[in-house]
Amino acid sequence: MEPNVSVGDGLPPSAASCQSLGHFCGVAGVRSPEPVDIPRTLFYMLFSLQHRGQESCGIAWEEEGKWRSRRDMGMVAPALGRYVQECHLSSLGIGHVRYSTAGGSGIQNAQPIVVDCNKGRIALAHNGNISNGGELRNGLTAEGSIFQGTADSELILHAFSRSRKPDREGFLREALEPLEGAYSLAIMHEDALVAARDPSGFRPLYIGHSGSKTFVASETCALHALAPMDYREVEPGEVVIVDDAGERSFFLEPKRPPKRCVFELIYFARPDSEVFGRSVHAARVLLGEALADQDSSGLGADIVIPVPDSGNISAIGYARRSGLPFDFGLARSHYAGRSFTLPTKDQRELMVRLKLHAVPEVVSGKSVVMIDDSLVRGTTSRIIVNLLREAGAREVHVRLAAPELKWPCYYGIDIPDREQLISNRLDPEGIAREIGADSVRFLPVARLLEVLNGDRGFCSACFDGHHPFPLKPGRKDDR
Amino acid sequence: MEPNVSVGDGLPPSAASCQSLGHFCGVAGVRSPEPVDIPRTLFYMLFSLQHRGQESCGIAWEEEGKWRSRRDMGMVAPALGRYVQECHLSSLGIGHVRYSTAGGSGIQNAQPIVVDCNKGRIALAHNGNISNGGELRNGLTAEGSIFQGTADSELILHAFSRSRKPDREGFLREALEPLEGAYSLAIMHEDALVAARDPSGFRPLYIGHSGSKTFVASETCALHALAPMDYREVEPGEVVIVDDAGERSFFLEPKRPPKRCVFELIYFARPDSEVFGRSVHAARVLLGEALADQDSSGLGADIVIPVPDSGNISAIGYARRSGLPFDFGLARSHYAGRSFTLPTKDQRELMVRLKLHAVPEVVSGKSVVMIDDSLVRGTTSRIIVNLLREAGAREVHVRLAAPELKWPCYYGIDIPDREQLISNRLDPEGIAREIGADSVRFLPVARLLEVLNGDRGFCSACFDGHHPFPLKPGRKDDR
Amino acid sequence: MEPNVSVGDGLPPSAASCQSLGHFCGVAGVRSPEPVDIPRTLFYMLFSLQHRGQESCGIAWEEEGKWRSRRDMGMVAPALGRYVQECHLSSLGIGHVRYSTAGGSGIQNAQPIVVDCNKGRIALAHNGNISNGGELRNGLTAEGSIFQGTADSELILHAFSRSRKPDREGFLREALEPLEGAYSLAIMHEDALVAARDPSGFRPLYIGHSGSKTFVASETCALHALAPMDYREVEPGEVVIVDDAGERSFFLEPKRPPKRCVFELIYFARPDSEVFGRSVHAARVLLGEALADQDSSGLGADIVIPVPDSGNISAIGYARRSGLPFDFGLARSHYAGRSFTLPTKDQRELMVRLKLHAVPEVVSGKSVVMIDDSLVRGTTSRIIVNLLREAGAREVHVRLAAPELKWPCYYGIDIPDREQLISNRLDPEGIAREIGADSVRFLPVARLLEVLNGDRGFCSACFDGHHPFPLKPGRKDDR
Amino acid sequence: MEPNVSVGDGLPPSAASCQSLGHFCGVAGVRSPEPVDIPRTLFYMLFSLQHRGQESCGIAWEEEGKWRSRRDMGMVAPALGRYVQECHLSSLGIGHVRYSTAGGSGIQNAQPIVVDCNKGRIALAHNGNISNGGELRNGLTAEGSIFQGTADSELILHAFSRSRKPDREGFLREALEPLEGAYSLAIMHEDALVAARDPSGFRPLYIGHSGSKTFVASETCALHALAPMDYREVEPGEVVIVDDAGERSFFLEPKRPPKRCVFELIYFARPDSEVFGRSVHAARVLLGEALADQDSSGLGADIVIPVPDSGNISAIGYARRSGLPFDFGLARSHYAGRSFTLPTKDQRELMVRLKLHAVPEVVSGKSVVMIDDSLVRGTTSRIIVNLLREAGAREVHVRLAAPELKWPCYYGIDIPDREQLISNRLDPEGIAREIGADSVRFLPVARLLEVLNGDRGFCSACFDGHHPFPLKPGRKDDR
Repeated sequence: MEPNVSVGDGLPPSAASCQSLGHFCGVAGVRSPEPVDIPRTLFYMLFSLQHRGQESCGIAWEEEGKWRSRRDMGMVAPALGRYVQECHLSSLGIGHVRYSTAGGSGIQNAQPIVVDCNKGRIALAHNGNISNGGELRNGLTAEGSIFQGTADSELILHAFSRSRKPDREGFLREALEPLEGAYSLAIMHEDALVAARDPSGFRPLYIGHSGSKTFVASETCALHALAPMDYREVEPGEVVIVDDAGERSFFLEPKRPPKRCVFELIYFARPDSEVFGRSVHAARVLLGEALADQDSSGLGADIVIPVPDSGNISAIGYARRSGLPFDFGLARSHYAGRSFTLPTKDQRELMVRLKLHAVPEVVSGKSVVMIDDSLVRGTTSRIIVNLLREAGAREVHVRLAAPELKWPCYYGIDIPDREQLISNRLDPEGIAREIGADSVRFLPVARLLEVLNGDRGFCSACFDGHHPFPLKPGRKDDR
Repeated sequence: MEPNVSVGDGLPPSAASCQSLGHFCGVAGVRSPEPVDIPRTLFYMLFSLQHRGQESCGIAWEEEGKWRSRRDMGMVAPALGRYVQECHLSSLGIGHVRYSTAGGSGIQNAQPIVVDCNKGRIALAHNGNISNGGELRNGLTAEGSIFQGTADSELILHAFSRSRKPDREGFLREALEPLEGAYSLAIMHEDALVAARDPSGFRPLYIGHSGSKTFVASETCALHALAPMDYREVEPGEVVIVDDAGERSFFLEPKRPPKRCVFELIYFARPDSEVFGRSVHAARVLLGEALADQDSSGLGADIVIPVPDSGNISAIGYARRSGLPFDFGLARSHYAGRSFTLPTKDQRELMVRLKLHAVPEVVSGKSVVMIDDSLVRGTTSRIIVNLLREAGAREVHVRLAAPELKWPCYYGIDIPDREQLISNRLDPEGIAREIGADSVRFLPVARLLEVLNGDRGFCSACFDGHHPFPLKPGRKDDR
Repeated sequence: MEPNVSVGDGLPPSAASCQSLGHFCGVAGVRSPEPVDIPRTLFYMLFSLQHRGQESCGIAWEEEGKWRSRRDMGMVAPALGRYVQECHLSSLGIGHVRYSTAGGSGIQNAQPIVVDCNKGRIALAHNGNISNGGELRNGLTAEGSIFQGTADSELILHAFSRSRKPDREGFLREALEPLEGAYSLAIMHEDALVAARDPSGFRPLYIGHSGSKTFVASETCALHALAPMDYREVEPGEVVIVDDAGERSFFLEPKRPPKRCVFELIYFARPDSEVFGRSVHAARVLLGEALADQDSSGLGADIVIPVPDSGNISAIGYARRSGLPFDFGLARSHYAGRSFTLPTKDQRELMVRLKLHAVPEVVSGKSVVMIDDSLVRGTTSRIIVNLLREAGAREVHVRLAAPELKWPCYYGIDIPDREQLISNRLDPEGIAREIGADSVRFLPVARLLEVLNGDRGFCSACFDGHHPFPLKPGRKDDR
Repeated sequence: MEPNVSVGDGLPPSAASCQSLGHFCGVAGVRSPEPVDIPRTLFYMLFSLQHRGQESCGIAWEEEGKWRSRRDMGMVAPALGRYVQECHLSSLGIGHVRYSTAGGSGIQNAQPIVVDCNKGRIALAHNGNISNGGELRNGLTAEGSIFQGTADSELILHAFSRSRKPDREGFLREALEPLEGAYSLAIMHEDALVAARDPSGFRPLYIGHSGSKTFVASETCALHALAPMDYREVEPGEVVIVDDAGERSFFLEPKRPPKRCVFELIYFARPDSEVFGRSVHAARVLLGEALADQDSSGLGADIVIPVPDSGNISAIGYARRSGLPFDFGLARSHYAGRSFTLPTKDQRELMVRLKLHAVPEVVSGKSVVMIDDSLVRGTTSRIIVNLLREAGAREVHVRLAAPELKWPCYYGIDIPDREQLISNRLDPEGIAREIGADSVRFLPVARLLEVLNGDRGFCSACFDGHHPFPLKPGRKDDR
């Protein structure tokens, strides 16, 4: 993955436009029979899920019988920090971090969405993308529903309200089963916390317990941030309900083959997390090892360096398998990524220079294997390779711990238009020429899936174009 | 009216809690066949309507076929100023300023609300209060509608969408006619600007024309801010539609007797505005004259001073009729009302001292007639009377250009709970004792209506309890 | 005075560039043998002196034997409010508000300046301008002094340190007596509060007592803001020292004829203040009456209106003497003057429209006498006269409660360059033509001084060019 | 080094109080005969030196013959970013980042300081600490100098001004030679850029050339950030002057044995920098190798992990020499360190949990060697060791790539009071018990110096108490 060279985090995404790939969201939820400071707990959980979305964030919680919510643009700490200075005793709450595509930016799409309807009070936090959302939206609109935002989350709430099943399990089933695509949901409904995951299981979702408290989170790192606790994956198609009657779950129909998003393991999830029942760190080491196997005939390289931090762990795997020394040939500024708009856009190269630094001691005179997780547009990689050359690197071999990225994603990842993806324009030799590398090599899809136990069921549509659900567009609000 | 002693404007209302009476909203709209910079135009109009709501504000506009909107908490200049730095060519837009009751505060209630529904795209800005809103909301909820906020505006949009009449006039009629209470609306629907006013005409609404451009605003001051233009009142019950086919209007059924809010003339509207077809300034002079008539037997006073600025104009009327000299015995700081939270709440007296200053030269040794527009809780008046005494006033006679305020308003004014209203606790002599005045006198309701041509039809429910529409509560979301 | 049409207060002065006349500063000081919350007390005093300077502000105080200070750009409430949320027990402190000329803007010129020198710890807050400051600065620089800012205040501190007199009275005398020009000073020196005023008495300075506490302030309004108390003027040339040994004062040599700044009474001071031993309000009424006397042969006017708020009080005087009715023909927005940068500078007219509103009811069809305090560039007056015409005024007669402004001030007022002053370009008839008025009339200097008891000694150099001290420039740092 | 667990960067240091060791400053300077955008160039250089100081920052530059400066509290991007949006053509400028001890915080100590004096205009940026500063300050104060801040930098400027040598080399020599302690200076004097370094060479200083432009910076990373260029160390005791006459240098008397700060190599400098003529990265690898040599008898460990990022490079060295695998057992949040004040101080453990995450996959069931650069108070290390235990680590052996930290620094490092340093309270076994480690081991001073070529002359006073210059305190301003 090209490093995020933005020095404008905290700004709307249009200002921090150099983000290469975007992830839609992360969700969190807490239920405690004994009232505790749930807004602050959610704050810590969302802080740990910040990597899943930096555009907006929000929390909703019960407090003395009332429902309160705070949503704001920006990062968790500045946007929500002021609301958790005081204790808010609560028994139920959910939270959300959001990264949005350009079109749907704005506070009206921030989550959780809290509504009052014939099922009572419901709040919803959603990670994913409903591939038949446009179609369903058209249907609901025809029946008289109004849509205030463009996010699929509003659609799901409408579906809850439109259901004629009065009971919780009933309307959840009736609303969720027609949905195609990806959703991992944290829901508040009256006194219940609900966690639901689509039958394909595109996005991760975990549930944990500590004492009488229940926690729901996109990744286990949000649970670790609080305390050691028992946890398990919410299964694909599973809906878990926790209310005064206890915890129970049911499965949505129809069952579907699992389609876990392989990019969660490659790039999105935090390395200390478990997603899809496996360690993210371990998966990345395996990918690095598989890359090294490809070069086993020998590159004559001297050293393996990661593009920090996205390439760190695969580089460990590559170094171990290849026997080449691992070193930090690129240093990363701790202070980049702060509020600052660079004067002009053509200074992208300067932005990378402020963020990443080649270490001459490590690379001078060396043949370097540079490991990154994937390649999107190639522009940043070109600059990094040049930094290494300036620092004296004799050869630069770029290795990507992923296949060639060529297709859009309809299940929650924001991938640039196809024509912007370098792998749609050039083969590896062409890419090497364009970014100034001596060689460039990817991991084939088959190998990727083999390494990650493909029989467990992964979605690799962004690499191979095999979309489990095609996109069914509807008339979309053009905001 | 007690002066607003807040030194915390720009903060959420809970911080600036000393606001005495709150007004719900102001609306604005622009349509121009020739694209112009409508966001900036709306900015100037909303700036001129700022006195009608300081909690949040927003604009929605068409731009190159897309609809865009910006809503934020706070005052017009800081909240929207940054969005109007660049020109946005547009042919249609509406705007809103909002003051909210404590319960309904928050960005989810900011307007305009923009929705996508089976009638197409609609944006709505609403001033008023629907007295059967709870009841209607219950009905809509039962049918499957979801409510994201607590404001009546969302209700109106649901009603548009639920209507089976496909044509614009049809669904407007079908949605609006069941509404009881107050609404002055600026609406965007596809290519049309719509202005609508409830049949009782509680809240003001004006329409103006300049060249081919059409403007809608709560008060004429928002039109004057742009340029001299022709304007007229949108009549009670009138709905004006301006689209590519031109401008036309129809009237809602049933016709009702007009119930113009008398408090608009007493306090809310800006003195340079016309509302309800009459000059606000002129009305206030008449009220001051009527007050003087009540004291015609002689108070032995030396001087008439207003509480700035709410008592300014009535004081002019009082002075003219009584023959007593008018003077500025209280000065007002230009710098109060800025962002600042006073350390402790018990420093209310200090807050008033920072905001208002008695001028010893004017009042020392004098018997003073102090004119204000109305009396709510009486706390600020007590402090002001004390300031005058400290500055040497021999006698202080408080005269209010309104009747005793005793009842709630269901049509868009935020009046404190009945037990907080000083006129529900005390008679004028008791009030005089409590605030330290030598005498206190109000204007009787009958006299008020007589002065203002009562046959034109005013609502004076907050003074006399004669509510044209009783409140019909529904199950309300408790946010 | 033309109204301040800025809608950008709180911004640096370059952004809020339409301020017509600027005042340099206001000072405050408190000493209490019993420790009290002096930072908060100074906050309230500076808030009341905000009209004397809006660019930067600061406070310095003793706390537990240490000296602390806070200085920041901007208005008192946002800049200092956060520092007074908690109580800081203290026995001594001073404060300052500053308006600066364009060149000297910046935090390095904010006051109070706190220094450590051979006289111990000294903090200084200065209102005025030293006309031989450049010359003295050259001398000190030659001896090895370094200057970090461009303000005269630093010069005074250097002079204290350079003095060989070790005792407080000694070094104060030695440092202050060579100064020419204007200074009203609040000084902390070790345990003492010192108030000092130049022998000409250009700028006002008051001292008040409440219990064992001593207060120093530029105007009495800063004392009234706290509590009723006894106060007196610090005399021209007087230096008052308050320390553990009690309060005493001495007079600087040589004695000079008093040269009180007449503009303080005309415009700068707050109307509820006393400055130079007389009520500001009373002075302005007298000026209005004198204006009316000039028109005694009859204008045939119908009504007298002030430009709010600068013309308010003189308009009262004019109306009383002329017998014409006083009314509010111009309304002023309470919400202008907030943080907002207008998109383009050529929208000055729009800025005035947002700030001031003509009231058609008052002026339509009338011959209007419009009273303002003075005329600087004339640009705003032109717009206001046009507003009155648009609202239907038949005739507009502009009357200024001051002479024609023609000269610079070397003693603390920021007057635009001579070529920008309309009275240097045009005679009253020419001005009337340029601003679109039917007539324009000023108050002659002789009449002004006569009205204000000229024998008391006023400086009217900005009107007549008779500068008590010529400017003696030195080599100035060109920041 | 314990990781900085602050989640409050950007706030004043009192809020972000968990910083373990502080560095005083970084300096930068640019001179270009051809005017270029020097403020922006300095911005990029200071951005690259941000790790040397986060409390305040500033730039001063020549522009069209005038000197301008901007100083503000906080980080480079938010504090200075807005000033570099527009181009400022300039031929000369300097900049500074500052970290301050608790006492001397505040804008009055921000640099560069710009003064006007008998040598003309001088601006100064200083990194270091003058150990006889108090004494010299007393002397200058006695002669009449005034001090506005507590920083030594003001002292140096006074000394320039007091010198009777009129020529540049003369007054530089006369002012600098009496100074004891540490200083690396970037100075603007009229048309000249001056770089000066104390004869002991405590702090690094580099000079680089690119075309006709000259650059000065504390570390080479600030030069690399701009472009590849030639550079060299400014030698201990060397003063380089670059003016219209070209570049020349002289050496201060007396010559002294070099005393380079060893902590620059251990922790402060950026790994991609060269300081003291050697690669920081290479030095840290050597320290890690030396640590491994100490454990050569065998620990039975399974894995080597760094505390990111301070232990990264030494961990590489340890892993290589020991043959143990290197891995990322601790992950670091990219989003911590943003503006956020944690509700209560006792949540330090939670703060570390938000910042650092143990990776179970890596450490579970393992005996772990955890490498950090040094140990200050030990509180954070205790929490980290506990994180590793929670993640399943069987044994945790803590290795520090530095000796035991026991003494204060008088030359520019902010070390906590002696009683807070864990190595003054406990021996390694005691430390191991307190932080919950199975063992703790440091690098002896002799070995450290041997590894780093001690004959080159290092200061290791913070480890061994051998201070080259004792502290000579004077009467200090107690702010």
